[in-house]
Amino acid sequence: MVFELRPVAWVRSLRVELLDDQWDGVSTTVELDDDVPSEALIGLEQFSHLEFVLVADRAAEVPPAPWRRHPRGNAEWPNVGIFAQRNKDRPNRLLVSIARLERIDGRTLFVQGLDGVDGTPVLDIKPVFRWNGPRGEVVAPRWADEIGLDYF
Amino acid sequence: MVFELRPVAWVRSLRVELLDDQWDGVSTTVELDDDVPSEALIGLEQFSHLEFVLVADRAAEVPPAPWRRHPRGNAEWPNVGIFAQRNKDRPNRLLVSIARLERIDGRTLFVQGLDGVDGTPVLDIKPVFRWNGPRGEVVAPRWADEIGLDYF
Repeated sequence: MVFELRPVAWVRSLRVELLDDQWDGVSTTVELDDDVPSEALIGLEQFSHLEFVLVADRAAEVPPAPWRRHPRGNAEWPNVGIFAQRNKDRPNRLLVSIARLERIDGRTLFVQGLDGVDGTPVLDIKPVFRWNGPRGEVVAPRWADEIGLDYF
Repeated sequence: MVFELRPVAWVRSLRVELLDDQWDGVSTTVELDDDVPSEALIGLEQFSHLEFVLVADRAAEVPPAPWRRHPRGNAEWPNVGIFAQRNKDRPNRLLVSIARLERIDGRTLFVQGLDGVDGTPVLDIKPVFRWNGPRGEVVAPRWADEIGLDYF
């Protein structure tokens, strides 16, 4: 079974290299695809944060890339399965990222902290509701905390 | 531009109807697709919450479904664009949902609060890190709070 998905928008950024960290320092916009009418954005300005589904189209597909690895190739972190990490080299190469919405100008969203490089296709844009995050205490191994130290 | 994406897993649930609410009461599992090796799950048991990207394959594609609507057809809520809501009738029909991981038995994940009906294709499984949610206060309009009152 295969699903054919089409970009609804595109990341525009001064960042073109596939770097891991410090996404807050990058000025980023998301621009609607020509096939999407502007009315799709009505009401979006009332939300402080948005969730984006991106395709990491320059990442390595799994397979042939391996089903497990040390996150970022760091041997000090455990050799875990691809579904126990969020790295971009994965089956279907989907990224899910939450960014702060700064403002909307026409068909362009100005966002902070979106971890997509210039030209990244956007498959979906969703508002962040106050209640759709994890409920209860979030437990994660230490390496997962460490990988976030310089992310933003 | 089109991306061809393949399910990596499937939702198995006693819920087959496309209902909106009360997902906590539904016993749900996620089972790896036959093409995915078990090693993809190594280390996943160390996380309390998982994020799933689902295809709402029985929802209405946008277009031809409209680019704006009242959420759930409720005229008391505003007629907003499809990217200002999280409903399943949308371009690419992608859902992003966070659920609590109860346990893993072989190639089956037992989860609580996953809002997918039986047979829903899963395109990705990611761990929830303590730091990848929204940063700062989350602001949302009142209707977005109200829609969550009976969700779980």
